[in-house]
Amino acid sequence: MRAYDLILKKRNGAALSREELHFLVDGFVRGDVPDYQMSAFLMAVFFRDMTAPETADLTLVMAHSGETMDLSPIPGVKVDKHSSGGVGDKTSIVLVPLVASLGVPVAKMSGRGLGHTGGTLDKLETIAGCRTEISGEAFFDQVRRVGCAIVGQTADLVPADKKLYALRDVTGTVDSIPLIASSIMSKKIAGGADAIVLDVKCGGGAFMRDVALARRLAQAMIEIGEALGRRMAAVISDMDQPLGDAIGNALEVHEAIATLRGAGPADLRELCLVLGAKMAMLGGVAANEVEARARLEESLGNGAAAGKLGEMIRAQGGDATVVDDPDRLPRAPVVRDVTAAADGHVHHIDAMALGLAAMALGAGRARKGDDIDPAVGVVLEAKVGAAVRAGDVLARVHARDAEHERAAVVAVRDAYTIDAMPAAAPPLIRAVLG
Amino acid sequence: MRAYDLILKKRNGAALSREELHFLVDGFVRGDVPDYQMSAFLMAVFFRDMTAPETADLTLVMAHSGETMDLSPIPGVKVDKHSSGGVGDKTSIVLVPLVASLGVPVAKMSGRGLGHTGGTLDKLETIAGCRTEISGEAFFDQVRRVGCAIVGQTADLVPADKKLYALRDVTGTVDSIPLIASSIMSKKIAGGADAIVLDVKCGGGAFMRDVALARRLAQAMIEIGEALGRRMAAVISDMDQPLGDAIGNALEVHEAIATLRGAGPADLRELCLVLGAKMAMLGGVAANEVEARARLEESLGNGAAAGKLGEMIRAQGGDATVVDDPDRLPRAPVVRDVTAAADGHVHHIDAMALGLAAMALGAGRARKGDDIDPAVGVVLEAKVGAAVRAGDVLARVHARDAEHERAAVVAVRDAYTIDAMPAAAPPLIRAVLG
Repeated sequence: MRAYDLILKKRNGAALSREELHFLVDGFVRGDVPDYQMSAFLMAVFFRDMTAPETADLTLVMAHSGETMDLSPIPGVKVDKHSSGGVGDKTSIVLVPLVASLGVPVAKMSGRGLGHTGGTLDKLETIAGCRTEISGEAFFDQVRRVGCAIVGQTADLVPADKKLYALRDVTGTVDSIPLIASSIMSKKIAGGADAIVLDVKCGGGAFMRDVALARRLAQAMIEIGEALGRRMAAVISDMDQPLGDAIGNALEVHEAIATLRGAGPADLRELCLVLGAKMAMLGGVAANEVEARARLEESLGNGAAAGKLGEMIRAQGGDATVVDDPDRLPRAPVVRDVTAAADGHVHHIDAMALGLAAMALGAGRARKGDDIDPAVGVVLEAKVGAAVRAGDVLARVHARDAEHERAAVVAVRDAYTIDAMPAAAPPLIRAVLG
Repeated sequence: MRAYDLILKKRNGAALSREELHFLVDGFVRGDVPDYQMSAFLMAVFFRDMTAPETADLTLVMAHSGETMDLSPIPGVKVDKHSSGGVGDKTSIVLVPLVASLGVPVAKMSGRGLGHTGGTLDKLETIAGCRTEISGEAFFDQVRRVGCAIVGQTADLVPADKKLYALRDVTGTVDSIPLIASSIMSKKIAGGADAIVLDVKCGGGAFMRDVALARRLAQAMIEIGEALGRRMAAVISDMDQPLGDAIGNALEVHEAIATLRGAGPADLRELCLVLGAKMAMLGGVAANEVEARARLEESLGNGAAAGKLGEMIRAQGGDATVVDDPDRLPRAPVVRDVTAAADGHVHHIDAMALGLAAMALGAGRARKGDDIDPAVGVVLEAKVGAAVRAGDVLARVHARDAEHERAAVVAVRDAYTIDAMPAAAPPLIRAVLG
């Protein structure tokens, strides 16, 4: 077998076999297939696409390029969730303990923030002492003992994805559905879950601007998972405006805790109920959506969900008292209101602009490895559809100093589109698959 | 400017500017643009194509990536020709002195054989003492003094093409019209000619199997040349059966000399007259095709063309007496007839199979750098359309020993398709452009 022939085969529109993909991917990880051949192959995939079985085979060979987690000794259906990322997306911090509180083991590997999007690990680490870089064994033990964990990927998980992504990132081959889908799903497959619920974000603050494209990505990932024996479901949710009110690490943990205690913004709560119901059903603890929602709402109301978050934080070495006293989280020294200039209705809030404003405040990273400031960010007081009067607070900027605050106030004000005509809130759930 | 953005621009279907192509190609030659970005770009070009002005710009920046020849001090319109390569294609050895004998300076850089195709340099070097690796200055002096030269490319000519071709060769990006056209034309532009006549071969023994594709390639090259101020013409000629009768280096020189002396196979003579007429007209020594053909035929008949070959050989250090006594060329020790098994008509001669049979005899190279045997090859005695009787000689194999001879006899016999029904010779000239 020669890499050259496989490039030509894909270029000419044929599907590669699992053996051929294994030859390419393993050869690439080992260094036998050079970068210049792999990048030509990836560009051919961009133009020719991949069949569903081919994408599943690619995912499988990627998943097996390194260490894989075996969660089978843990009783029950182990459930994972994945979000394609957005602005203000603290869903995992709510969902993981919420679903675990119903008796479904949730083993979640998360990432860090980059650019306009935040990362679950950065958020969790704002809790004093909370560790996310733990070994595979410790992860396994925690899921068995506590019922849930949120950790970073171990270094040996899916090396093929790390190397492929680095190459795609510099060769214009990132935005290809089979390559995105196999990248995400290879990590989920290697993570060992039996069931996976996907939250594919769609809109101005998301990777997928367009609902049709988001649906294609969700469908591709469902087909991969099902071909590899996983129980799958997907939700396409709105990311035209930020999710919930808080953007910024400790601010988002604060909001996640409020939601787990039965309060929190309506859109965040609703999305957690929709995704959580899918996870509960796939996890086998609810027969249908009505039953699943009832159990989830009960857990949010009776303290069980919040209690599970405390258990998880404690297991990961963190200060679990934040669950009862979230004001213990880091707080920014400067808080400034952004107010409406005139009466009107909020028609649009530019999620991407707010994500970048939070990054500029120090909440996110322009480049991998940048330090982040846990305390800073933006909290929205008015979302799309709200009626506001001149002088009303639209949002509050939490900054480390006056200079950062001033720049953010301008950016946040510009992110709002306010008009005299009434406006409707956008639908939160754009589609449900599986 | 970043290579990444240029890859994306091409991938998304836009045309690059000359400045952008210069950045990419020069960066690649210098090593600033890595192979893995260039191969992704080349694959994007394969799928997205290039506009005519873009292909001309690419050709120009490639041509200027190294040394260029300045032939302007030589009086007259300097004419070059290019053949896309085939089996039995000794046209250059006839055409260059033939056209020069009319007073048109012909400055020709040629290549070596690889795979089933032969190379003009290998053929010329079968003449004792004849050098083809000469300096740019010596090349210039010879064209001025003698009126023609056939030499290898100097090492510094179009380094971008050498590096790009090596990458295309291993990344499945060879067969792209703008990449083939810019590769060929960059060398012609750097070679300094004012007018270029292209012989694009088409058929089973050629790179282009299909006449429509050959026409697209010819058209692309004409557009490049004209955009860069060159006078251009192209002929699409048949390569379904070999050109002329001889295949193999000294055997082909023998046939070229015969043709220059007014004899030679009809198809080779006709193609040289068609191409030569174009060269004479572009060179400004004939007003129309009738006049051009008359002057070329006169030169073939009166010894002027053959005399010019002798001058050229002498200038390149070779034994010019071969022009009058071609039996001085190397001769193979074993010559064996291949005969017809039954009566019939020749319907097809597989040019590719004969090219590979000649290569196996030692006339060609399986890999770059392989040695070649100057004497061996195949001479056809019956071409497509011929009526043959059982026992008639179809071809003669010239071999270094009995083992090679036996294998070649089988291959040559298999290359012939003979049927009872009458057959017509295929048209030699498929199209004339410009």
